[in-house]
Amino acid sequence: MENFHITKEFSEEILAQVREQRETELASVLDRLHAADIAELFESFELEEALYVTSLLDDEKRVNVLAELEPDVRESYLQSFSSDQIAKEFLQHMESDDAVDLLSELDPEQAGEVIASIDDREHSLLLTSMMRYPDDAAGGLMASELIKVNINWDVRQCTEEIRQQAEEVSKVFTVYVVDDNDILLGIVSLKQIVLAKASTKISEIFESNVVSVNAYTSGEEVASKMTKYDLVAIPVVDALNRLIGRITFDDVMDFVREEADKDYQMLSGISENVEVGDKVWVLSRARLPWLIIGLFGGVMSSIVIGGFEEEIARNVSLAFFMPLVMAMGGNAGVQSSSIVVQGLANNTVMGGSILPRLGKEFMVALINALVCSAIALLYGLVSKVGYEITIVVCISLFSAIIFASLMGALIPLVLDIFKIDPALATGPFITTSNDLLGLFIYFVTGHAVL
Amino acid sequence: MENFHITKEFSEEILAQVREQRETELASVLDRLHAADIAELFESFELEEALYVTSLLDDEKRVNVLAELEPDVRESYLQSFSSDQIAKEFLQHMESDDAVDLLSELDPEQAGEVIASIDDREHSLLLTSMMRYPDDAAGGLMASELIKVNINWDVRQCTEEIRQQAEEVSKVFTVYVVDDNDILLGIVSLKQIVLAKASTKISEIFESNVVSVNAYTSGEEVASKMTKYDLVAIPVVDALNRLIGRITFDDVMDFVREEADKDYQMLSGISENVEVGDKVWVLSRARLPWLIIGLFGGVMSSIVIGGFEEEIARNVSLAFFMPLVMAMGGNAGVQSSSIVVQGLANNTVMGGSILPRLGKEFMVALINALVCSAIALLYGLVSKVGYEITIVVCISLFSAIIFASLMGALIPLVLDIFKIDPALATGPFITTSNDLLGLFIYFVTGHAVL
Repeated sequence: MENFHITKEFSEEILAQVREQRETELASVLDRLHAADIAELFESFELEEALYVTSLLDDEKRVNVLAELEPDVRESYLQSFSSDQIAKEFLQHMESDDAVDLLSELDPEQAGEVIASIDDREHSLLLTSMMRYPDDAAGGLMASELIKVNINWDVRQCTEEIRQQAEEVSKVFTVYVVDDNDILLGIVSLKQIVLAKASTKISEIFESNVVSVNAYTSGEEVASKMTKYDLVAIPVVDALNRLIGRITFDDVMDFVREEADKDYQMLSGISENVEVGDKVWVLSRARLPWLIIGLFGGVMSSIVIGGFEEEIARNVSLAFFMPLVMAMGGNAGVQSSSIVVQGLANNTVMGGSILPRLGKEFMVALINALVCSAIALLYGLVSKVGYEITIVVCISLFSAIIFASLMGALIPLVLDIFKIDPALATGPFITTSNDLLGLFIYFVTGHAVL
Repeated sequence: MENFHITKEFSEEILAQVREQRETELASVLDRLHAADIAELFESFELEEALYVTSLLDDEKRVNVLAELEPDVRESYLQSFSSDQIAKEFLQHMESDDAVDLLSELDPEQAGEVIASIDDREHSLLLTSMMRYPDDAAGGLMASELIKVNINWDVRQCTEEIRQQAEEVSKVFTVYVVDDNDILLGIVSLKQIVLAKASTKISEIFESNVVSVNAYTSGEEVASKMTKYDLVAIPVVDALNRLIGRITFDDVMDFVREEADKDYQMLSGISENVEVGDKVWVLSRARLPWLIIGLFGGVMSSIVIGGFEEEIARNVSLAFFMPLVMAMGGNAGVQSSSIVVQGLANNTVMGGSILPRLGKEFMVALINALVCSAIALLYGLVSKVGYEITIVVCISLFSAIIFASLMGALIPLVLDIFKIDPALATGPFITTSNDLLGLFIYFVTGHAVL
């Protein structure tokens, strides 16, 4: 699998083998492929073909492929299975975090049926309790499979525990140390276990200085802690500090990427999580809301401009600089809100009062407004646009930049205080309002000066 | 350190201890703090205070703090040390990837002096060879410290090797298996080593199915492979498939975040990597370029509008819908380019020809243009804006959305082919051109119809 890419040729070759049901050949290829690659192949398969390939996979690989599928592909794939089959052929072999993700994608009724079909009562209770946590909190991101050892054990007992859990816990990075009541006391790295003597007490080698999170800690905070301290996994505890799960780097990496994508899409005016590969109508549907809000904003602006019809008729050059002032206000607003949104997302904006931050934003806006107005003034003087209109442009440009910058910084901060996603401030509604504001400032100034 | 946050009170308490040089108290606090937290504290210290705190840290923690500092803080901090001190007090204790990062931040002359001051010739040769790789390629991200074992060894020898390397390699996740010529053959997980007997041959338990990258593989591809296959570390090989380093999840997590931040800032028109906490003039400087390009675009638009002065004088309502058509073209363009940019960044846009993708974008744009024009038509009919101007708005809106969408999708794809960062397409230059295009379409239509 060294430096392997799924090429078009490879994908066609596999498809041919699937269609001709060349089982031995296929089995050997599938054996060498990573679940993520098989999942990628599934996207070019018909349902029948995907089901045939599934039948050639062992339990572990089958559930790994399922976990790697895109949600919409997984949904249509699972429709070929009964609730009982989903429970017995998939859920029972899945790690708890993947199982919970799968259950939360089903409609509640079917999820209930699937859980009821699980034979192991302890397992179904565990999944039910895990489903209670919000998707984007530590409890929703964690898996319950982990290796934990008692502080009173020695390294031999610890190795034995790893052996017994080895099948269930696919990736072991750290061993968690607990007391008799399951209270998290610390960690031991696998490296230390490899190097220690079998008779060494865990209490002698464990590290008590451990970073943990609560089940209700937000995904953002989990990500920021793991990134800050370079953690490969972070333990999750309940309110009594009892160890209930762990979150590994790969889940957090996915989370970070999804959050960044969401903020990016908000800024570019796309309302759903879409990809280039999605269907035309999905892409179109994701993009229409912003366009329609923008259209509405445009109609509003036409009404504002219409209100100043006389001024324009008297002085047509007033129309020339309308787009300039609007766009500049819009740009300045997007800049200041996106810096605040990014700061909140990366946790570099720390708690505190809003006023000093607005003061700073005012200073930044003041400098930028002065520079831009000076350039506009210079242009007005060397060109032949006229003295009066130059004054109007300079004053309104100056006010629009300052006003839009302050609003741009204020809105995400306020949204964040009310626990609303601050990225909304970079969305179409606010940016369209900003444009209208610039336009209004422009005409009011024009009315006053001309 | 459980659920520890650096509060203002804590930071002031530490600062007081530093100023009064309460050494024993401080040493015990510092001992319990993670290097990342100490680095955070450094940002509120004067240089003198930072140097005093440094003197209380052991070698390992000192270099870890240095590696965690923000680049600008690190730069001013290192100015208090001679090249010889930088080599002996810092570089010699650092992991190779941090050492290379540090050297590349120094000016080339000083970097040369520092390397010359390293006593261990092998170490200086290694760093010199690592500095040759581009920052954003696998070779620039990797560390050379890793645990490798010969395929002919047994588990006992492997454990012994881990013991000997334990001090140099702080985090061990995987043991790399090589032949006598250092050719990468596979991996053994620490879990397998813990569970295997001491006499077991490595050749019996190693996994030959290993994903690796070349030293010149791009950081994006490294990140996408590690994310796709959920790898905690990835081995880096040279052209002869010899193992030369490894990249761990934390470095890739930082890389992914930085790349996402860059794309976000490009989209919001910010030209440098800035944070809310930066100085006013830094923030201002990062934001002025886009504003000035926008200003230039505004002046251009005033000239375009000026060219249609007569049309506006004859029919003032033409001015009313100017911002609408401009903004809609701009919005549609940003949407289509940001989807392509994100697709390229996440590797969901696969290689292939441009034409089918433009065809798809055309379909999406067609639907959106039809819907928006239909809404505009409806508005024109129910309001009293007039029959002719409604026709102008609908036709130009339709053309502007389609044209801007196609350009928006085409430009990042073309930039990518020429190995230029496709995110540039979401930058101010292209978006301003898009606005002008919409304006031009509007007036040409207006001129033809009215």
